[in-house]
Amino acid sequence: MSDRVKFLLDEARLPTHWYNIAADLPEPLPPVLHPGTKQPIGPDDLAPLFPMSLILQEVSTEREIEIPEPVRDVYRQWRPSPLYRARRLEQALGTPARIYYKYEGVSPSGSHKPNTAVPQAFYNKEAGVRKIATETGAGQWGSSLAFAGSVFGLEVQVFMVRVSYDQKPYRRAFMETFGARCVSSPSLETSFGRQVLAATPDSNGSLGIAISEAVEVAAGSDETKYALGSVLNHVLLHQTVCGREALAQFDLADDYPDVVIACTGGGSNFAGLAFPFIGENLRHGRGTRIVAVEPVACPTLTRGRYAYDFGDTGHMTPLVKMHTLGSTFMPPGFHAGGLRYHGMAPLVSHVRALGLIDAVAHPQLACFEAGILFARHEGIVPAPEANHAVREAIDEAIRCREEGVSRAILFNLSGHGYFDMQAYTDYFAGKLTDQSYDEQELATALAGLPAV
Amino acid sequence: MSDRVKFLLDEARLPTHWYNIAADLPEPLPPVLHPGTKQPIGPDDLAPLFPMSLILQEVSTEREIEIPEPVRDVYRQWRPSPLYRARRLEQALGTPARIYYKYEGVSPSGSHKPNTAVPQAFYNKEAGVRKIATETGAGQWGSSLAFAGSVFGLEVQVFMVRVSYDQKPYRRAFMETFGARCVSSPSLETSFGRQVLAATPDSNGSLGIAISEAVEVAAGSDETKYALGSVLNHVLLHQTVCGREALAQFDLADDYPDVVIACTGGGSNFAGLAFPFIGENLRHGRGTRIVAVEPVACPTLTRGRYAYDFGDTGHMTPLVKMHTLGSTFMPPGFHAGGLRYHGMAPLVSHVRALGLIDAVAHPQLACFEAGILFARHEGIVPAPEANHAVREAIDEAIRCREEGVSRAILFNLSGHGYFDMQAYTDYFAGKLTDQSYDEQELATALAGLPAV
Repeated sequence: MSDRVKFLLDEARLPTHWYNIAADLPEPLPPVLHPGTKQPIGPDDLAPLFPMSLILQEVSTEREIEIPEPVRDVYRQWRPSPLYRARRLEQALGTPARIYYKYEGVSPSGSHKPNTAVPQAFYNKEAGVRKIATETGAGQWGSSLAFAGSVFGLEVQVFMVRVSYDQKPYRRAFMETFGARCVSSPSLETSFGRQVLAATPDSNGSLGIAISEAVEVAAGSDETKYALGSVLNHVLLHQTVCGREALAQFDLADDYPDVVIACTGGGSNFAGLAFPFIGENLRHGRGTRIVAVEPVACPTLTRGRYAYDFGDTGHMTPLVKMHTLGSTFMPPGFHAGGLRYHGMAPLVSHVRALGLIDAVAHPQLACFEAGILFARHEGIVPAPEANHAVREAIDEAIRCREEGVSRAILFNLSGHGYFDMQAYTDYFAGKLTDQSYDEQELATALAGLPAV
Repeated sequence: MSDRVKFLLDEARLPTHWYNIAADLPEPLPPVLHPGTKQPIGPDDLAPLFPMSLILQEVSTEREIEIPEPVRDVYRQWRPSPLYRARRLEQALGTPARIYYKYEGVSPSGSHKPNTAVPQAFYNKEAGVRKIATETGAGQWGSSLAFAGSVFGLEVQVFMVRVSYDQKPYRRAFMETFGARCVSSPSLETSFGRQVLAATPDSNGSLGIAISEAVEVAAGSDETKYALGSVLNHVLLHQTVCGREALAQFDLADDYPDVVIACTGGGSNFAGLAFPFIGENLRHGRGTRIVAVEPVACPTLTRGRYAYDFGDTGHMTPLVKMHTLGSTFMPPGFHAGGLRYHGMAPLVSHVRALGLIDAVAHPQLACFEAGILFARHEGIVPAPEANHAVREAIDEAIRCREEGVSRAILFNLSGHGYFDMQAYTDYFAGKLTDQSYDEQELATALAGLPAV
């Protein structure tokens, strides 16, 4: 086992292919359905929203999908991202565990999101698209697409969930620095946004609403396409560059993870790190435990139903089978904006249903507490989303101490918290609480799931 | 010449020694004087403020000073920092120049400052110190010392220049995340702060005032020492880890810089990158042009006088010979808080006086414009301080285009701008101007220089 604290891969070892878990699944993913006919949809149905190259990735079952050279060129700026051994944290916890974290905060927007923003912008540009509309929760996805758009010369419009828009004005300025236009959602710029505002003028917004707005803008113009920062198969595919690097870095470390931990909102950060390790479990009989971590206030995998549902609140998307809290479910305005989504990526839901992963939920305050402990020892202030993974990794390390066993723990530090200092300020001022959703509202949202 | 975009050094090649330019200077540095006697001071005079190990580094003329292993252990988390080739920016500028930047934003506080915060905390801890008092301008130094204090178990109190304290509340939360206490300066906690507030209740503060406050706190307690984030010889020494890495990285790149550019406030960021290259010029006959960049609104090297002056506004420090605008000079509240200092590091002033470096000044708006151009192509939003180096590097690349020559340009991207989005927001809103100082005030400040 290496005694280093940082495992860097040479630029020459940047992965050449993404890993497509669809090739290794014991059962295929349930089909995506047309909301009207309830029949499986085909590639052409998605053509108004996405370029065909991305649609083909969405349905591909090839294990290895080549990363285009212009994408690798941009990746090279921050990839391969570092894998760290958290030695000072281990010492502080007095744990025999070996704690590793893959750090995605070194990217242009400070999170894992550019891993898919860059190829999405590339494929859109290649298809002659002029503008991309999208939504953003915490702002990390919008920033990433803004960056990718600026690299490939695409106009970018971002619908930002209102609670984040208000909490994170600097994320907005960041997107504008890259030349994107950022709009608070629900907005007056779409008919769906106007409809929501008419009914709920003080709506906090949600990813589901913002998705509806961006889809509406894209569907209304031939030159405009839509881009999603998570959930879809091709988005998760692009993120696997992260887990592939981690596998190579564990070779450098002369170690292998017993447990892999990542937070889940839409599922792409989780899939990016975990899917290549699930692939190793499936193909090479490895026994790594894979743990998805979500907020107690938006517990899609741990309290949701595995059922067909809409991806958005406005019911403009096809129906996908996923763990869902119901598309009308409105999570409270807690500080991990990237985890406030009613659904879960179909692929993540599927591997959960197949028993290939575990899922746990942690409350907000315990996550901030873990993030601050991590920061004081490792010198990186995590994004509130990433704090969920930090919490679970610390809990696992404490279990190792209690059991007297040394397990190798790998977690995804999916982003830094430099744009989230208001959340930390609120935490220190005692203003944060363990917000909860309304049980009655959840029951109503689940009762409203479409009949399939 | 390598066709790569990123030059990473293996962890094993982390420098083992800092480079002390004092060993290679054609003339020794003028002595530091006692403000009362005007006689050279000795190590003992500094003992109330600093541990002896740092004082000995301050006066050392050994070329190589070993980096203690516990310091290298902490450095390893983010060092060696990457050297980038800015290929997309080159393309956008249509320049034949090869533009390289050393990126210090990967550090725990997002700037070069931890390079000295970590050893300073280490030496203080080793000397049995319990608490460190310091000042901070833009907040990067305070954040860095907060981090270093948390690693070595030291209490940290930070006097933050009021204009930055108000502009950057999140920097404060960041310091608190690392467990430090942050106070707006001028404050009511020191007699000098109370004196300034009595005379100027709405004082913007300045580094000079904040230094006086921190020195007062340190001088008043046996268990408390003072730490400075720039200016002093030992601080500049610690920063040379940056330039030493860059030298090794240019070997990897199979190239060598014709021009080295860095911004200067107190001088440590500049010295960290430039001094090892000046050493190569002096010892190996290299002809690299070295350029210090400062703001037009605080033009210490380009408009100041090379004379003995106090380092602080309260006249508690010894007298040092440096380029100075006068210790009573109050720069306008522009957004590069880290460059708002009336003086300049004696070593930087000395190499300037010896003709070993050039100096230029750029106005604020042109610097932001350059930073945004850089961000849109390179994906990193620079700190406003770093924008000064970006501006000069772009100007040099344009000169290369006009002259039809391909020079290799290296600049120090000393920090990211994630905590400076208010400045970018103001820039986009058209609220930033090219603020200037008052010529009369400068004349008065210079007239008030102490007679030596």
